[in-house]
Amino acid sequence: MEHNSAIGVFDSGVGGLTVVREIMRQLPNENVVYFGDTARVPYGSKSKQTVLKYSRQIIRFLMTKNVKAIVVACNTASALALPELRPEISVPIIGVVRPGAKMAVSLTETKNIGVIGTEATVKSGIYTRYIRELTKEVTVVSKACPLFVPLVEEGLLEDRITDDMVDRYLSEMKAYNVDSLVLGCTHYPLITNAIKRYMGENVKLINPAYETTKELKNMMREEGILNQDSAPAVYEFYASDGADKFTTFADRVLPMHVDKVNIVDIESY
Amino acid sequence: MEHNSAIGVFDSGVGGLTVVREIMRQLPNENVVYFGDTARVPYGSKSKQTVLKYSRQIIRFLMTKNVKAIVVACNTASALALPELRPEISVPIIGVVRPGAKMAVSLTETKNIGVIGTEATVKSGIYTRYIRELTKEVTVVSKACPLFVPLVEEGLLEDRITDDMVDRYLSEMKAYNVDSLVLGCTHYPLITNAIKRYMGENVKLINPAYETTKELKNMMREEGILNQDSAPAVYEFYASDGADKFTTFADRVLPMHVDKVNIVDIESY
Repeated sequence: MEHNSAIGVFDSGVGGLTVVREIMRQLPNENVVYFGDTARVPYGSKSKQTVLKYSRQIIRFLMTKNVKAIVVACNTASALALPELRPEISVPIIGVVRPGAKMAVSLTETKNIGVIGTEATVKSGIYTRYIRELTKEVTVVSKACPLFVPLVEEGLLEDRITDDMVDRYLSEMKAYNVDSLVLGCTHYPLITNAIKRYMGENVKLINPAYETTKELKNMMREEGILNQDSAPAVYEFYASDGADKFTTFADRVLPMHVDKVNIVDIESY
Repeated sequence: MEHNSAIGVFDSGVGGLTVVREIMRQLPNENVVYFGDTARVPYGSKSKQTVLKYSRQIIRFLMTKNVKAIVVACNTASALALPELRPEISVPIIGVVRPGAKMAVSLTETKNIGVIGTEATVKSGIYTRYIRELTKEVTVVSKACPLFVPLVEEGLLEDRITDDMVDRYLSEMKAYNVDSLVLGCTHYPLITNAIKRYMGENVKLINPAYETTKELKNMMREEGILNQDSAPAVYEFYASDGADKFTTFADRVLPMHVDKVNIVDIESY
């Protein structure tokens, strides 16, 4: 492994590209290998055992690419698998949950923090645990929003139906006077407008991708593994199924066009 | 393999239990082994190559259970994989697409047939092809309805939001004066009421599970493999992930309680 080895980033699908976007912004020197498990997406309704198994396969794949650090850019995998994965691997690994939790604590004034995510993330209770490790003086209101991912994937970003679902899922958040809300799933930042319209301007929406990349940068600096090369960064994209959807989504999220997505038989890892 | 060997039934998830229900009704003597690929659900947004690979793994698993016939109780797998699977295996195999297509042709008077299903099923064009093999004198209007599955899984069976989506997805069906509509995904029969309300009483809704089981019975009679035993039928349920959701759905669909779901490591087949 070298300083110019890539950072490995993975997600259950394409949502984790929002983290790649942040790496491009905050760490423009770094090479990235991204893997999206598009064949087995979504993880949010799966068991811990399955998500752990899938994450291990992906990490084995990323290690063949000689990555120097790994970002679990998937809230569900961060919530369900990261604690068990960490001692198993030899490179630094970071998830999106802890940075999101930290940000929420630092921003709240009403001491009421909201967390929305997939069924699995919310059921795991991990955001609440991390937040309460930082401070006992907050109330955490969490809510699973299983229809948000399919609504985003159907492209209904600005739509009456999405507004209607936001209204239903988030009514408790209003009732509890939440003033900082963690978007605990990488798809949710794409419906920020709808969420903001419902929650109001005074509620801070936290996109963990930004904070995670900031922590990644600190961690890499401490470990002494930042890339010192001035060569243009190289980005490689891998997925377990169909490239078409991947590039369509990537074009919406990334500041560059992805012209090649390599398909990987992830079950063989 | 014996006359009292089980019929193997599989689906991407739990939707195929609607076919098991029909087998219980129409073939009460027959033993059934059901496999639901709950770890890798949904298939509807995946590529042909992936669906074919998953179907082959499942068939290898079912063959270890010594099944005498296989029902592909998943529209997507029937559409994308069945033609290639048929020559590879030694027992009779039947899918849900052809029986549904036949029924639609026999029921239409306006000669305008509608087909709704997942993205993959609709994109494959297989319903249209089967229907046009039966008659050239019909127009087929097909439409992918990707939000119906998550809406059903979220339990919004009688809900304004579901009605709203039905309205959007099916407006073309009305415009084309469709009088027979194939529910080309095993989840859709659960929102029959919402679809009927929108389409009106004169439009016949076709649930391929019923017709498929009728054909299965004929096929088994012809092959001489109907079970002659009078012992009570045995039903075994297998899934690739979490048993909880499986039993909840099963309780809604089946006339019996499923008290044991066996978890299978399907990737090892």
